[in-house]
Amino acid sequence: MADAPGDIEALIALMARLPGLGPRSARRAVLHMLRKRAVVMEPMAQAMARVAASARECRVCGNISDADLCPICASPRRATGVLCVVEDVSDLWAMERAGGFSGRYHVLGGTLSALESIGPETLRIPQLVQRVSDEAISEVILALGTTVDGQTTAHYIAEALAPTGVALSALAQGVPLGGELDYLDDGTISAALSARRRL
Amino acid sequence: MADAPGDIEALIALMARLPGLGPRSARRAVLHMLRKRAVVMEPMAQAMARVAASARECRVCGNISDADLCPICASPRRATGVLCVVEDVSDLWAMERAGGFSGRYHVLGGTLSALESIGPETLRIPQLVQRVSDEAISEVILALGTTVDGQTTAHYIAEALAPTGVALSALAQGVPLGGELDYLDDGTISAALSARRRL
Repeated sequence: MADAPGDIEALIALMARLPGLGPRSARRAVLHMLRKRAVVMEPMAQAMARVAASARECRVCGNISDADLCPICASPRRATGVLCVVEDVSDLWAMERAGGFSGRYHVLGGTLSALESIGPETLRIPQLVQRVSDEAISEVILALGTTVDGQTTAHYIAEALAPTGVALSALAQGVPLGGELDYLDDGTISAALSARRRL
Repeated sequence: MADAPGDIEALIALMARLPGLGPRSARRAVLHMLRKRAVVMEPMAQAMARVAASARECRVCGNISDADLCPICASPRRATGVLCVVEDVSDLWAMERAGGFSGRYHVLGGTLSALESIGPETLRIPQLVQRVSDEAISEVILALGTTVDGQTTAHYIAEALAPTGVALSALAQGVPLGGELDYLDDGTISAALSARRRL
């Protein structure tokens, strides 16, 4: 792109590599930033530099934070006996947005995948087993995706935790809020049917 | 969003305001950047800070560049007699990507709009008239959108430039490359029909 000058071109090329953006939307975003330089571009450059310098993995749960211990692990108001296992930090954020969970987390960092050669060590599963025995955990909630890889990972974790005797649970499967049966896949309907509850 | 720590949250909120991104894709983008900190996030923060500090409007044509005079206006290889009038910097970039134009540009910065109370002064139209007489321009190409506002602006410019006697032209209207008649609107087909050329 010899059309935009060097630095702007470089910024567009970098932004075009973000998920959800392509060359066209990166150009639009950069032009928007150029028009709102003081209120958007400068604060964003500063926030990005600060986050790049300070963000790190929580040494206990794998959450991303600007301290050695994330706010959730550091909070005395979060229950210590229950661990919620999630694939990724984005899933932890989704759980927190939903609210309703007052325990702590364990972020795996992905799912087991033979294709991508992701094994248990890459996934912080040994650390999970260690935490369950060290922290006197009474329940581990598996909040993993209902994909093949997610469910494989859930099974592997269940086996790895079996010797500890900890109670295991998983998120319920069923009809999502606002879901119409006609638009749901057969697997979800079957799962919701077999897990039906009495009114 | 009490889920992500302060700085990360602030960065997500800023990015969510970019065109084409919302809260969800901003979160994905920030997580992606956090995973590729050295190759994406740090270079992007630096590029953004550099652009925010150096980018400015070319004093002649209104293009965005890091100098007082943009590379196109500064280039001795661009023809001086022909001006291409575009609405916005993004249109200038689009023209340059398409190639084939070797003259210089004049960026209006929008279109006339009674609704948004955008008048000729806001749009650098007086500067255009000035340039046409100062720079001995022989042809002005109006490369404006075929929207109501774009065409209103084209008419206004044509009237404003009439006293200078400069030759005016506009981009051809017709069937776009790869276009199928069945999917085109009637207006485009009519325009292409009345501008048909002999083979």
